[in-house]
Amino acid sequence: MKNLKVIAFDADDTLFVNETFFGEAEEKFCSLMSDYLSKQSISQELFKTQINNLPTYGYGIKGYILSMIETAMSISNNTIPVEYIEKIIQYGKDLTEKPIELLEGVVETLELLTGKYKLVVATKGDLLDQRRKLHKSGLGKYFHHIEVMSDKQQIDYLDLLKRLEVAPEDFLMIGNSLKSDILPVLEIGGYAVHIPFHTTWEHERINHKIEHENFRTAVIMTELANLLS
Amino acid sequence: MKNLKVIAFDADDTLFVNETFFGEAEEKFCSLMSDYLSKQSISQELFKTQINNLPTYGYGIKGYILSMIETAMSISNNTIPVEYIEKIIQYGKDLTEKPIELLEGVVETLELLTGKYKLVVATKGDLLDQRRKLHKSGLGKYFHHIEVMSDKQQIDYLDLLKRLEVAPEDFLMIGNSLKSDILPVLEIGGYAVHIPFHTTWEHERINHKIEHENFRTAVIMTELANLLS
Repeated sequence: MKNLKVIAFDADDTLFVNETFFGEAEEKFCSLMSDYLSKQSISQELFKTQINNLPTYGYGIKGYILSMIETAMSISNNTIPVEYIEKIIQYGKDLTEKPIELLEGVVETLELLTGKYKLVVATKGDLLDQRRKLHKSGLGKYFHHIEVMSDKQQIDYLDLLKRLEVAPEDFLMIGNSLKSDILPVLEIGGYAVHIPFHTTWEHERINHKIEHENFRTAVIMTELANLLS
Repeated sequence: MKNLKVIAFDADDTLFVNETFFGEAEEKFCSLMSDYLSKQSISQELFKTQINNLPTYGYGIKGYILSMIETAMSISNNTIPVEYIEKIIQYGKDLTEKPIELLEGVVETLELLTGKYKLVVATKGDLLDQRRKLHKSGLGKYFHHIEVMSDKQQIDYLDLLKRLEVAPEDFLMIGNSLKSDILPVLEIGGYAVHIPFHTTWEHERINHKIEHENFRTAVIMTELANLLS
C-alpha cells in the first residue's frame, strides 16, 4: 500500500449506521404481519422477495418498501387490510429520516487522510438517500467524489477506476462487506481493508475466509492510519 | 460555442422515449381507479402525491410506483381491493422492461461528435434503470461518463462540472426540459440546446420563453452538427 492515490470508502455501516435501522424496520414489519406467519418465516419471505426484485429495483429504501408490500400481500394471500400497506410505506419513509450515527473514528481518520490521498465514497443504494446521508453527516467536504453504484461487482469497480483514472494497484477500498467491498477489489488487483460491522445483511454474507497479500482487516477505522504507514 | 470541451446529453426523451411510457402507465392507473374519480382528477391527485414525495423518493420508477399506491389508497379512502396494489406494482415493473426507442438522429449525431468532444450523459431518475436503459440502447460506448443526478438544479450542475474538471463556458447541455436541462445551465454560464419532445411531464414545464446568447433550439438531434460548426 505504498503508492496509493485513491482511497474509497463504503458508506452504510462503514461511515455510519445503516443495517441497524433496516433491522428495526424489519422488526416492525414482522410484528405487523405476525398473524400470518412466524417472525422467522416472514423474514425469510421478505429476503426472498428482495433478492427476486434486486435486478428490477436494485438496492435501497424504495425497493425495500416495495418488497415489503409485495411480501405482505403474498404471505396474506392478499387478505391484509389496505391500512397495513400505509403502515409499511411509513416504515420506509421513516428510514429516510433516521439521524446519522457516525461510526467510531471516522472523522479523525478522514481528517488524517484528507489532502494526502484522493478520498471518494463508493456506495450502493438509493441515489437520493445516499446523497442526503452524506450531506447530513457533514462528511461531504472530505470527499472528491461520491459514487453511488448500481452494483459492486468487479466490472463496476473497473468502471469506477477508469472514471477516476487510477490503476488498481493505486486504489484502496474500505468497507464492511467482504462480498461487495473487499472480494471484487482484490480480484481486480486493488487493495482492501475490511472493517466489520456488528450486523451484516444476509445478502452480503460469504462463507469463507479471505487470505490475500492486498487484504487487511481492522476493528475500528482509526487503525487505518497504522495500516497505511 | 467555439471552445466546447464537454457535451452532456439528458437521457429520457432526449436520447430515447420515456414520457410516453409513463403516460401509458398513468392511463392504466386512471382506468383502474375510474370507479373513484374522473380521469383528470386522478391524474391531478397522482401529480400532487408525486410532488409531495419528490424530496423523499426523488425521480424514477420506484418512487412513481409508490406514489401511485399512495394515491390509490388516498382517493379510495383505503377501500381499494389489495389486488389493485398488485396491479399497480406490475404497471411499474412493466416500465422497467420497455424496449429502448432511440430518438431520430441520435446515433448519427453521437457518431459525428465522438472523439471531438468528451460526451457525457447527465440524467435524473433511478440509478439502476438509467444504467439499464443506456446499456440496452447500445449508446454506452459513446459516453465517457454517465452521471445519474439526484436533481438538476444549478448546484447539481456546478458539482458535475467540478467533477468533470470543465469550466461552464466549455460545457454544453442538450435536453428536452427547459426547466432541468436548459435554465440552470444558462444560469451558471454554460451553453444549452433545447430539443423538445412531444410530451413533457407537468413538473418539467415552465411558462416563459427563454432568450439568451448561449441558448439554441433544435427540432431534431441532427441539427446539432450545424449548431456546433
